[in-house]
Amino acid sequence: MKCRRCQKQAVVALPSHNTAFCADCYLLFFKRQVEKAIKDHKLLTQNDKVVVAISGGKDSLALTWQLANLGYDVTGLHIDLAIPDSSEKAREITTNFCKKFNIKLKILEIKNEGLAIPEVKKRIRRPVCSVCGQIKRYYFNKFALDHGFTVLATGHNLNDEVARLLSNTLRWDTAYLSDQGPLLPAENGFMRKVKPLYRLTEFETANLCYLVGIEYGFTPCPYSSGASFTYYKQLLDELEFNQPGRKLQFYEGFLKRGQKAFKLLEQKQGQELNPCPECGYPTSGELCGVCRIKKMMGVMK
Amino acid sequence: MKCRRCQKQAVVALPSHNTAFCADCYLLFFKRQVEKAIKDHKLLTQNDKVVVAISGGKDSLALTWQLANLGYDVTGLHIDLAIPDSSEKAREITTNFCKKFNIKLKILEIKNEGLAIPEVKKRIRRPVCSVCGQIKRYYFNKFALDHGFTVLATGHNLNDEVARLLSNTLRWDTAYLSDQGPLLPAENGFMRKVKPLYRLTEFETANLCYLVGIEYGFTPCPYSSGASFTYYKQLLDELEFNQPGRKLQFYEGFLKRGQKAFKLLEQKQGQELNPCPECGYPTSGELCGVCRIKKMMGVMK
Repeated sequence: MKCRRCQKQAVVALPSHNTAFCADCYLLFFKRQVEKAIKDHKLLTQNDKVVVAISGGKDSLALTWQLANLGYDVTGLHIDLAIPDSSEKAREITTNFCKKFNIKLKILEIKNEGLAIPEVKKRIRRPVCSVCGQIKRYYFNKFALDHGFTVLATGHNLNDEVARLLSNTLRWDTAYLSDQGPLLPAENGFMRKVKPLYRLTEFETANLCYLVGIEYGFTPCPYSSGASFTYYKQLLDELEFNQPGRKLQFYEGFLKRGQKAFKLLEQKQGQELNPCPECGYPTSGELCGVCRIKKMMGVMK
Repeated sequence: MKCRRCQKQAVVALPSHNTAFCADCYLLFFKRQVEKAIKDHKLLTQNDKVVVAISGGKDSLALTWQLANLGYDVTGLHIDLAIPDSSEKAREITTNFCKKFNIKLKILEIKNEGLAIPEVKKRIRRPVCSVCGQIKRYYFNKFALDHGFTVLATGHNLNDEVARLLSNTLRWDTAYLSDQGPLLPAENGFMRKVKPLYRLTEFETANLCYLVGIEYGFTPCPYSSGASFTYYKQLLDELEFNQPGRKLQFYEGFLKRGQKAFKLLEQKQGQELNPCPECGYPTSGELCGVCRIKKMMGVMK
């Protein structure tokens, strides 16, 4: 198989794009997909102060590397969740990556907030993945706002986004459908959030890491029974195998046509958010979700 | 396994409904699903003059039987497509069924309209299934309007409807999504159309036929490469196996929540239909689709 662009020996085949690339041309392909996402949805400008949520997995590392490589002002933010073994490893990988590629890194220790995940797991009677996700979103948002960043970037890839879209669609959750997408604009109390990897698959980010020499974490979280939306991802992989390119078409079609409908509907029946009286985070309840968790943990009176 | 309702030996297991039934209770279940569809969406009243499109397959026969059994004023309409072997067989099955169950039957011979499907296939350069479907919809509609019926019922089942919904959703075809459903209200030139079997699966209609003693046609059309949406039906069967009840939830959720959004959007950007100058059928073009076909066939000057 030859590289579609330069006719050298190809190292990666991409049936979804009906193409194949050598290593150099693959890096160009990857960069262009990120640039296209940024341009199509006006995700970033060179004046932005970007903070990237880094877990230590392939997606967040590939994103950080690519944004830095494109000349954006990038700072990594890693949250140390205090999960035995798993968190130390993730922190080490993230630290080594940022050293190797000369990227600014901030680390937030969740135990300093009284929310070490093993403690949360013991005391909060909800699925731990959902609570942990809520806590991470809260602190990524808060850190970005408190430290003068203009945008928060996350490494969600096409597989993540399409699985979430399918899940939201099968339930016809019109509120979620009205604001799923690569750009969540800034709103009172919410940081502007972007997903520049939304056009790229898991395979494609793993492949970037391999070709660039980025060492990333493989170990799944010991509390997680598997990646989120695992079943939908499998089903969508089958669909993609049967109809190459379908995932990206489904997602892009949603952004171009479907989502308009849900936005119109939600304008008509949308829910008001107000600042949490404790911390200012937007909420539809009396206290925001994380302040409720803190109260249950006895961290907040 | 016991019947969930009467504790006799069950003959049918229905994982989607987490239940199992003996023959008698199955017939009751089937009837109630049809009654619920009719009631929830106000599909029919006892004053309606109902014409049912009968192909001779399990769905249209099960529908005709059930509506007659519920006391509706039902007339079958069979279109003889003039396809060698296949059409004769379908016509014979339909005729026998209507005789056996004492149901009024009208037969429309498509060759009398100059549109015998083998001729159409030779001369129209479009996939024949799409042209044939268009011609059938046109004549079912026209016959119902011309003969004073108040509603046209078709045997679309849950598998058909969900596969079509998935296909429309994967393409985010907002125009189709805005009016897919068990009820299409009458509009200028369009007959009121209903799908009272939309809550029942292929397996469930086949099973009704078996238990009631309805002989139905199995032979696929020689021109068709397989049932429509075959691949999506397989994919949805997998989903249903993994999450029993999901198909009906997906479809009902669409009707209750999702569709509102598409209707709002299409109100804003909807396309005008005008009567075809030749035959009066609503169209967005200069001539309606079937008059265009007739022109190409030389049937109409």
